[in-house]
Amino acid sequence: MALHMAVDVVRESEQSLTSQIQRFIRKEIAEGILHPGTRLPSSRRLADDLGVSRSVVVEAFGQLVAEGYLEAVRGAGTRVVAHLEAEPPQVVPALLEEGPDAHAAGARWDLRPGGHTFAAFPRREWLSCYQRVLNRADATGHGYPPLAGEPALRLELAHCLGRLRGVRTGADQVMVVAGFAQTLSLVCAALAQDGVTALGIEDPGHPGQRQFVRDSGLCPVPLPVDAEGVDVEALAASGLRAVLVTPAHQFPTGVKLSASRREALARWARDTGGLVIEDDYDGGLWYEQGGIRPLAFQREAPDHVVYAGTASKTLAPGLRLGWIAAPRPLLDRLLRVRARQDLGTDTLTQLAFAELLRGGLFDRHLRRLNARARSRREALEEAVRKHLPGARVIGRAAGLHAYVRLPRHVDEAAVVAGALARSVLVRGGAAFHARPGPTAPALVVGHAHLPRSGVTEAVRELAEVVRGR
Amino acid sequence: MALHMAVDVVRESEQSLTSQIQRFIRKEIAEGILHPGTRLPSSRRLADDLGVSRSVVVEAFGQLVAEGYLEAVRGAGTRVVAHLEAEPPQVVPALLEEGPDAHAAGARWDLRPGGHTFAAFPRREWLSCYQRVLNRADATGHGYPPLAGEPALRLELAHCLGRLRGVRTGADQVMVVAGFAQTLSLVCAALAQDGVTALGIEDPGHPGQRQFVRDSGLCPVPLPVDAEGVDVEALAASGLRAVLVTPAHQFPTGVKLSASRREALARWARDTGGLVIEDDYDGGLWYEQGGIRPLAFQREAPDHVVYAGTASKTLAPGLRLGWIAAPRPLLDRLLRVRARQDLGTDTLTQLAFAELLRGGLFDRHLRRLNARARSRREALEEAVRKHLPGARVIGRAAGLHAYVRLPRHVDEAAVVAGALARSVLVRGGAAFHARPGPTAPALVVGHAHLPRSGVTEAVRELAEVVRGR
Repeated sequence: MALHMAVDVVRESEQSLTSQIQRFIRKEIAEGILHPGTRLPSSRRLADDLGVSRSVVVEAFGQLVAEGYLEAVRGAGTRVVAHLEAEPPQVVPALLEEGPDAHAAGARWDLRPGGHTFAAFPRREWLSCYQRVLNRADATGHGYPPLAGEPALRLELAHCLGRLRGVRTGADQVMVVAGFAQTLSLVCAALAQDGVTALGIEDPGHPGQRQFVRDSGLCPVPLPVDAEGVDVEALAASGLRAVLVTPAHQFPTGVKLSASRREALARWARDTGGLVIEDDYDGGLWYEQGGIRPLAFQREAPDHVVYAGTASKTLAPGLRLGWIAAPRPLLDRLLRVRARQDLGTDTLTQLAFAELLRGGLFDRHLRRLNARARSRREALEEAVRKHLPGARVIGRAAGLHAYVRLPRHVDEAAVVAGALARSVLVRGGAAFHARPGPTAPALVVGHAHLPRSGVTEAVRELAEVVRGR
Repeated sequence: MALHMAVDVVRESEQSLTSQIQRFIRKEIAEGILHPGTRLPSSRRLADDLGVSRSVVVEAFGQLVAEGYLEAVRGAGTRVVAHLEAEPPQVVPALLEEGPDAHAAGARWDLRPGGHTFAAFPRREWLSCYQRVLNRADATGHGYPPLAGEPALRLELAHCLGRLRGVRTGADQVMVVAGFAQTLSLVCAALAQDGVTALGIEDPGHPGQRQFVRDSGLCPVPLPVDAEGVDVEALAASGLRAVLVTPAHQFPTGVKLSASRREALARWARDTGGLVIEDDYDGGLWYEQGGIRPLAFQREAPDHVVYAGTASKTLAPGLRLGWIAAPRPLLDRLLRVRARQDLGTDTLTQLAFAELLRGGLFDRHLRRLNARARSRREALEEAVRKHLPGARVIGRAAGLHAYVRLPRHVDEAAVVAGALARSVLVRGGAAFHARPGPTAPALVVGHAHLPRSGVTEAVRELAEVVRGR
């Protein structure tokens, strides 16, 4: 094995080199620095590296094997005895995460929104893009990436955002980030620098984002959402200077900001100089039959909007890939904040994504994803109609989740608890509300990652729970 | 083409659908939302998506082609006319970066340290690891990554750090980060929370890091470096509570912290409860003939050290991959800070690196890299001996750069300027000093990314400059 190992020996010493090596390795193992099962370099390699004769190392290894510290493994050289390896490594629990994996263990149907669809990840296409990028890179490529992102990706994003979402931008106003979390982190920091202390958020909205805003030092101020989207009058009355919204497909209710509200929001931004953060979290996912895909709100007031997209819903959250389109002066400030956090996003991942966009492969992937999500949505609507009388799927046919309003008399919390007892993990609408007090009973159902039959079966289980009360 | 396009049409309108589509696209192009050269969906696709008859779209497209807004491209459908495309996109200049690409343009020999060696990147091995990981991922994989990193990578790192660097750690004390910049960002934030206002740094040291520390809100306090490494007495006298050091291979002088200084530094940390950030930036790169690879300082006082490594020197800066080994309570705090910055590191990249470590491919790659760097170092020493009488390469044979001390009488700034005139880009020692005042003339030479002949030729050019004065 060509492995390396650090060994501390002193050439001019009373102790023989063999005994020095032996003592060193024994001590490293005893102190847990060399871990059980760790493979060691071959004796020839180690002797070469240390500039000693091979017999010195052979003897040291032999002695350590005899003592039970090392073991020879046929075909795999020598390793630290592995009998302790069975002990699983302790792993720090993930902190403050709203990721979908947190408590999924065990439930037969996990209906929480954010359920990812890695099954639909375009593996073959992604790999071929990644490979092309890797082969193409010349010797001088792949230094530190530009902080704002690889120019090739920024250009593709600018084109694509214009065509797909009607975003009014150019490559010089686009920045690549590590997902929406980083976007929010950068914007909150920039707002705080301006003396802004509060950020308007939608209510109901994303509880993880609410917490994130608070942890970032701003006070999240809930603004009501109704069938037309966020209440812009409440925003105007609040005196807030910035607001975080999901205009295309409100999270979690699924409603679309109405035309008059869009106009009012743009007016608010222009008149007050307020900042709108547009979280277009599932912007590429829209599958209403013959429905008109809503355009990004950003185009109404490009000088006052940070438009934010992400690959988490359309590709995979694990890529940690997102993007921002913002007016240049603000983008420059966000870059300055970022320069204190990291030095940019993985080059290969960026360029592979640019390749996926350029070739039209991403659009093709979106079509497949939309077809898949539509069939789940249809299954959900059908099952709700059939098994949950009085309940109704509201909001647009878009994204990876739907909002199911339950009949007034139903006890939402009891349904959620009862569902869990039947191995269905589902979130009630209350979990998404910021303000205390009773809310109309509802369920927020992530459907796109399930098989069609799973959607149907899970709704049937929910119906049993509702009926059982 | 399966492309998507957002189009705003109203079904019940006095305007015909054709004229609505036509006007919409014309306006999007005129306003720069649809960019020159952007490809559009086929008329069939768009008609399907909008739920209109194909002839409606065909007519609209035809009219826009006639007007010169769109053009048909044989075999590639329809696109926005590209005659404006020649204008190169404006790209935001990278801010605050010390990356090697900043001013490289043009120089025949770029001797700046940090010159990356992507030519040596193990493309084949990396791709095969990446592919294996991608194929292995099941449908439920690749949600949001654990904030501390993928358990598989943390385990491999713990094993590897013990064997290769003698780091005293376990998987539960290891965290994966987006390169050393993020490490420094997290640690500075945690220190600031503790009321720490200053951080000791080595002088000479890394000017980019000095700036980074300052931008992070801490005052960087320079500590002198001599042939034994950083001056620990100066540290003890300073009253500082934290220090950033490069004990294995001081940057940029290349000296190794002496045994007595190591002891003194560990004693300082234990006695004062001070924190040592060990920047092991080129820890895997060591090629002294028969030389003993220095062990990480961390093992001397694991409860007081944040050990930080990076793949930037051994693989590529573009991967944005680094790691931390730290005592658990501190690691938990760093995780809490990180939860406000991003949601973890690219899963696929992490798992591919774990694969590279597990199979011994990384060690094999290090051997190649070390052999390459050693041959450059030898060429440098030989050329300096031959062409630059009185100059001397100091520091250990390690890493990707060397420190060349020039004869006392030489004017360093004049050499640097004269070299540039001969198309040799090199940094003088003064650029790395924090405290003002004269310093002994020296050059910091990144050599590992050059061909051997390039090293020789560049030194010959430098010699001409020195002689010419």
